[in-house]
Amino acid sequence: MGNSLGKRFTITSFGESHGRCVGVIIDGCPAGLAISEQEIQKEVDRRRPGDGPASTSRAEADRVEVLSGIYEGRTTGAPIGLLIWNQDVDSSQYLKERYLPRPGHADFTAYTKYGGFNDFRGGGRFSGRITATFVMAGAVARKLLGTIGVEIVAHTVAIGGIKARAKQVEEVKANAGSNTLRCADPEAAEEMLRAIEKARTEGDSLGGVIECIALNVPAGLGEPVFDTLEGDLSRAMFAIPAVKGVEFGSGFSAAEKRGSESNDPFTIRDGSIVTLTNNAGGILGGISNGMPIIVRVAVKPTPSIAREQETVDMEKMVPATLATRGRHDACIVPRAVPVVEAIMAVTLCDFAIRAGLVPEVII
Amino acid sequence: MGNSLGKRFTITSFGESHGRCVGVIIDGCPAGLAISEQEIQKEVDRRRPGDGPASTSRAEADRVEVLSGIYEGRTTGAPIGLLIWNQDVDSSQYLKERYLPRPGHADFTAYTKYGGFNDFRGGGRFSGRITATFVMAGAVARKLLGTIGVEIVAHTVAIGGIKARAKQVEEVKANAGSNTLRCADPEAAEEMLRAIEKARTEGDSLGGVIECIALNVPAGLGEPVFDTLEGDLSRAMFAIPAVKGVEFGSGFSAAEKRGSESNDPFTIRDGSIVTLTNNAGGILGGISNGMPIIVRVAVKPTPSIAREQETVDMEKMVPATLATRGRHDACIVPRAVPVVEAIMAVTLCDFAIRAGLVPEVII
Amino acid sequence: MGNSLGKRFTITSFGESHGRCVGVIIDGCPAGLAISEQEIQKEVDRRRPGDGPASTSRAEADRVEVLSGIYEGRTTGAPIGLLIWNQDVDSSQYLKERYLPRPGHADFTAYTKYGGFNDFRGGGRFSGRITATFVMAGAVARKLLGTIGVEIVAHTVAIGGIKARAKQVEEVKANAGSNTLRCADPEAAEEMLRAIEKARTEGDSLGGVIECIALNVPAGLGEPVFDTLEGDLSRAMFAIPAVKGVEFGSGFSAAEKRGSESNDPFTIRDGSIVTLTNNAGGILGGISNGMPIIVRVAVKPTPSIAREQETVDMEKMVPATLATRGRHDACIVPRAVPVVEAIMAVTLCDFAIRAGLVPEVII
Amino acid sequence: MGNSLGKRFTITSFGESHGRCVGVIIDGCPAGLAISEQEIQKEVDRRRPGDGPASTSRAEADRVEVLSGIYEGRTTGAPIGLLIWNQDVDSSQYLKERYLPRPGHADFTAYTKYGGFNDFRGGGRFSGRITATFVMAGAVARKLLGTIGVEIVAHTVAIGGIKARAKQVEEVKANAGSNTLRCADPEAAEEMLRAIEKARTEGDSLGGVIECIALNVPAGLGEPVFDTLEGDLSRAMFAIPAVKGVEFGSGFSAAEKRGSESNDPFTIRDGSIVTLTNNAGGILGGISNGMPIIVRVAVKPTPSIAREQETVDMEKMVPATLATRGRHDACIVPRAVPVVEAIMAVTLCDFAIRAGLVPEVII
Repeated sequence: MGNSLGKRFTITSFGESHGRCVGVIIDGCPAGLAISEQEIQKEVDRRRPGDGPASTSRAEADRVEVLSGIYEGRTTGAPIGLLIWNQDVDSSQYLKERYLPRPGHADFTAYTKYGGFNDFRGGGRFSGRITATFVMAGAVARKLLGTIGVEIVAHTVAIGGIKARAKQVEEVKANAGSNTLRCADPEAAEEMLRAIEKARTEGDSLGGVIECIALNVPAGLGEPVFDTLEGDLSRAMFAIPAVKGVEFGSGFSAAEKRGSESNDPFTIRDGSIVTLTNNAGGILGGISNGMPIIVRVAVKPTPSIAREQETVDMEKMVPATLATRGRHDACIVPRAVPVVEAIMAVTLCDFAIRAGLVPEVII
Repeated sequence: MGNSLGKRFTITSFGESHGRCVGVIIDGCPAGLAISEQEIQKEVDRRRPGDGPASTSRAEADRVEVLSGIYEGRTTGAPIGLLIWNQDVDSSQYLKERYLPRPGHADFTAYTKYGGFNDFRGGGRFSGRITATFVMAGAVARKLLGTIGVEIVAHTVAIGGIKARAKQVEEVKANAGSNTLRCADPEAAEEMLRAIEKARTEGDSLGGVIECIALNVPAGLGEPVFDTLEGDLSRAMFAIPAVKGVEFGSGFSAAEKRGSESNDPFTIRDGSIVTLTNNAGGILGGISNGMPIIVRVAVKPTPSIAREQETVDMEKMVPATLATRGRHDACIVPRAVPVVEAIMAVTLCDFAIRAGLVPEVII
Repeated sequence: MGNSLGKRFTITSFGESHGRCVGVIIDGCPAGLAISEQEIQKEVDRRRPGDGPASTSRAEADRVEVLSGIYEGRTTGAPIGLLIWNQDVDSSQYLKERYLPRPGHADFTAYTKYGGFNDFRGGGRFSGRITATFVMAGAVARKLLGTIGVEIVAHTVAIGGIKARAKQVEEVKANAGSNTLRCADPEAAEEMLRAIEKARTEGDSLGGVIECIALNVPAGLGEPVFDTLEGDLSRAMFAIPAVKGVEFGSGFSAAEKRGSESNDPFTIRDGSIVTLTNNAGGILGGISNGMPIIVRVAVKPTPSIAREQETVDMEKMVPATLATRGRHDACIVPRAVPVVEAIMAVTLCDFAIRAGLVPEVII
Repeated sequence: MGNSLGKRFTITSFGESHGRCVGVIIDGCPAGLAISEQEIQKEVDRRRPGDGPASTSRAEADRVEVLSGIYEGRTTGAPIGLLIWNQDVDSSQYLKERYLPRPGHADFTAYTKYGGFNDFRGGGRFSGRITATFVMAGAVARKLLGTIGVEIVAHTVAIGGIKARAKQVEEVKANAGSNTLRCADPEAAEEMLRAIEKARTEGDSLGGVIECIALNVPAGLGEPVFDTLEGDLSRAMFAIPAVKGVEFGSGFSAAEKRGSESNDPFTIRDGSIVTLTNNAGGILGGISNGMPIIVRVAVKPTPSIAREQETVDMEKMVPATLATRGRHDACIVPRAVPVVEAIMAVTLCDFAIRAGLVPEVII
């Protein structure tokens, strides 16, 4: 259960890391949206491992196939099926260590919840590979949001404690794609790269923080008190493996401020009500206020590390040790950047449709 | 829209700050649960303003009335209706400032979304008062969780940048109720109190951080990939006004750790698999692992402050200034502690029922 | 569970027949809709027992109270709480016969499902009285549908096997309110009345068939393949106690026709595509086609009869007999007519909002 | 929107008649259920056109492929993806008649709702072919229901006004598969066959009625007042193209009975409470009572007929005529029988899981 997201733009994810495929069904996409396999492919390619030190060596073609819902280059109003066949899969290591849960991974909880029947190979449903299904759906959502002018950009703001300096949105948009870490601060990126390389050499891994900004989001999105913009966005972000914290605007640092510092004063600009600052991250009372939506997610270091770790043999119920020998990223943060964008896109799409901002037919 | 929470234990909140009442309907509570009006009242009383410097002077009796769903002292399986009539309401100030949105509040977004038809008095649906409906539902959820041994305790861990020292769970349980700030570190509490008093004197307000711990939660709760325990808990926490960040276990600090530090090694204790540390906050892959669930929420300083602030007149579309003169807390963090517990209880209840851990009839 | 209906216009029903009250929360009603307590009251009054032979002698004031969601005469966008306090309740008979399930009633299934903890007095949640909550919600839905021109009328088309002659819609609208049976064929109504009187005298009861017509429903409502207009309407109709069948357009008689008779030919009228006949009942492929929506529901005879019936004592597990002595209608069909209208209104409202036909703010 | 069914056992259907494939994702199936591709294939084969006069000449292999969610012969708890690639597709006729809606079909409403962007070829999402996705899901549901002893059988009870004589359940189980019409009354089946042959010869089509019986359904399934067993079953049945009516137990004929005839008296048999008759169709107050669940659905004659029919050209907005020349069944009723069973299985599965009758892991 729990593999669908969204109320009016609903995505259903399926597939496993080492199974036949990973895929997603999108239900609720308006008809008439022009979108090509290539556009979706392009987003998926952004999630692929790069050449840098941060990356895994698994070389996947990850070719997107459209199964349904698109005809003559446009969405039909029917469910859109998107699929990637798995390739280059080596499950031998997983078969050997089936009963040795990797610390920090879902191996133990999946085993417990599904009585050992879960497809554990490569982490199964809990693999980072599943986020490719989010990215496919995100590509469609993004195209749809484009029809109402919404833009989304995410970037790496910290890795292993090294923080990027704050940048203006325009700079973020211009620079985030300029390096393999997707960090808008090139100097910090250099330092982060060195830290990742060091961690990798030591058989270890690093986490980080990703910030995502959505621009031109109309005021009025969000459905308090429970279906708030913050609530639904955070819930969706936690679907990304390794995310352990989500904050909006000033977030946790707001807790250290005074009201007079934290409140964003209102003013009028070009005939519209705007705020002078954006500590709220574009959301007041769970509803968008027209300012940029700003969310940050904390990504824990990838739990798969080469160092030996203590675990237990779940079958024999005895202590054991484990050293992950599979192919793994020393830092998954850069690869998670397009995933965070995808989750933002899917969630905003859903809210925009709920609010009646996107018609049933796009012309 | 958006006033219901939960899939199998569903609460629907209604009512406004200065309307006739606030109330909640609970659907999905198993039949046979023994619960009295007094038990629910007791939880609601914990949310009331105290005598300390942190509190508003609005004196509400807040008497809980059971409308339906309980017969002969036990739940019947039918929807449980719970209601508090509003009293002691003075809306004059709000009527005067109807078109002057308070910075940091939902006044502007509510006005925009609902076309000015929203009941703005006292913040209407966006008032902290609405959390009384969460607490009523939480009291029932808590009682139900008690039947499977789950315990929940929350406490203030920071106010205005002053941090409580880390305490063992037992100490938290023992001390959290010992002071008006619900802080398990009495020395920090003293300091926090002084900071609040200072802020109040200066017409300002303070935020803080609340930690909530759930004990004895069975392994296996959570429904990845989207209905994760973290995701649903965070979504629900953002229903609490002023919450701007949510993290689990090490949370944002995990982003600064290495995998070897962050991973919780497994071991066997009393025949069960446990982890030696709990950086995961009791959740791996979105599923509970049997360790204590640990969540922290960042509460921004209450936006209602006595200081003059810049705003706009939404009707005349001209700049304006505003100084909140209503009765307000200089720091709402302590009053939010039982609300955080209630949200935790409602969410865990829902997951426990989904997982089949709670039967349709309690005997 | 199961006490909410609708995805974007959601009603949550609560309360019991002999408890404190019955009520409903409406979530998702757009802001700005002008509606008064009196308008809701008027619909509720239509459901009240009349003076005719068909009716119960329970004399309830059934005064509607607005708890929330309406301010200055207009909906605010917040949940609308509506409540009727119960009065004139005599539960003594029910207390005596607590363990004797009435044949044809929900007493046995409720006892089984809720382990005997259900509030059985007067049928509790399973009483026809609960439909007053549907009618309150229906009054709001109807007002909202009025803003897009949709009209709804239901009428009795059969009672105890006596069938009303088919009438044109205009005649139905004109005549359905002219007699206590809400039958548009006055002659059939006379005959029905005699049949009801006869059944009552013999300690028995009669069922019947209600037809409901919705006019001016725009083409395009319905969300195949599962959330069809027929599917969602029928599901909602089965919430009315005693309904055992639902059909659209030609319904069951379509099964006896040939395709050439059953298909409705298309033609152009006033620049729009219409059908020459309406065997489809206004729905093709689960989507409205712009013709009148026509649904008929089969209402079984009210199970509460004065005649002695065989049952069992659920506590002692021995055979028993039972003769209902409470106040009961010999035929509930006429009182169910406004309930069917309410269910139609609520369901169409939900679809209209889903399709973006009703804005978030009514001006 | 609307392509998912079920709350805890959720199926999401996708694909089009003349697109690449039809498929279904099942979310919420417990882990550990042993099921093979062959078992699913077997159910799908039952839906295929037979050799009789009732059938289309489209010869599809319809080979089921498992995409995900099954590992080592057992369900894993992850979403189960099932797919059939389309073959033998000739869309030329549809391309020619793109703007000529077939009377009785969804062509017009789909065109209207989706602005002409819908994949109209072969009816697209509105084709009977989509029911293959229900049957795949039904095969899994059925296997799961088998673990708690529930059995399901459907049969043709009427075609073109020719009614099968009532049969005992055991006879239905024994005979329903003995002829191509899936009719338990062989004599009536003969007559039906002749009627179908006659209709086909005359370029026409016939409808009919299917009855479905579920045995050994435990008492207590159903969630009143809105999520009743009748309501959810009927809603799901209307997803089958051409269904225009649904009734339970005595159904519409109950409306002609008296309470004393319609009520099912309770008695005790083998220590359990049962009813002497089953006019209720196994459902009281929306909850199963332990007796067989009995539902009947009215299937209108297939709208695709060879006879010339009046329609309009939607592009040119002028009258037109149309004679369906594609391959079509003269009577789809027999092929719909396994589809009705599948819908029953999926719905009961969902209720059984909601009620906690099926554990998260099957051992």
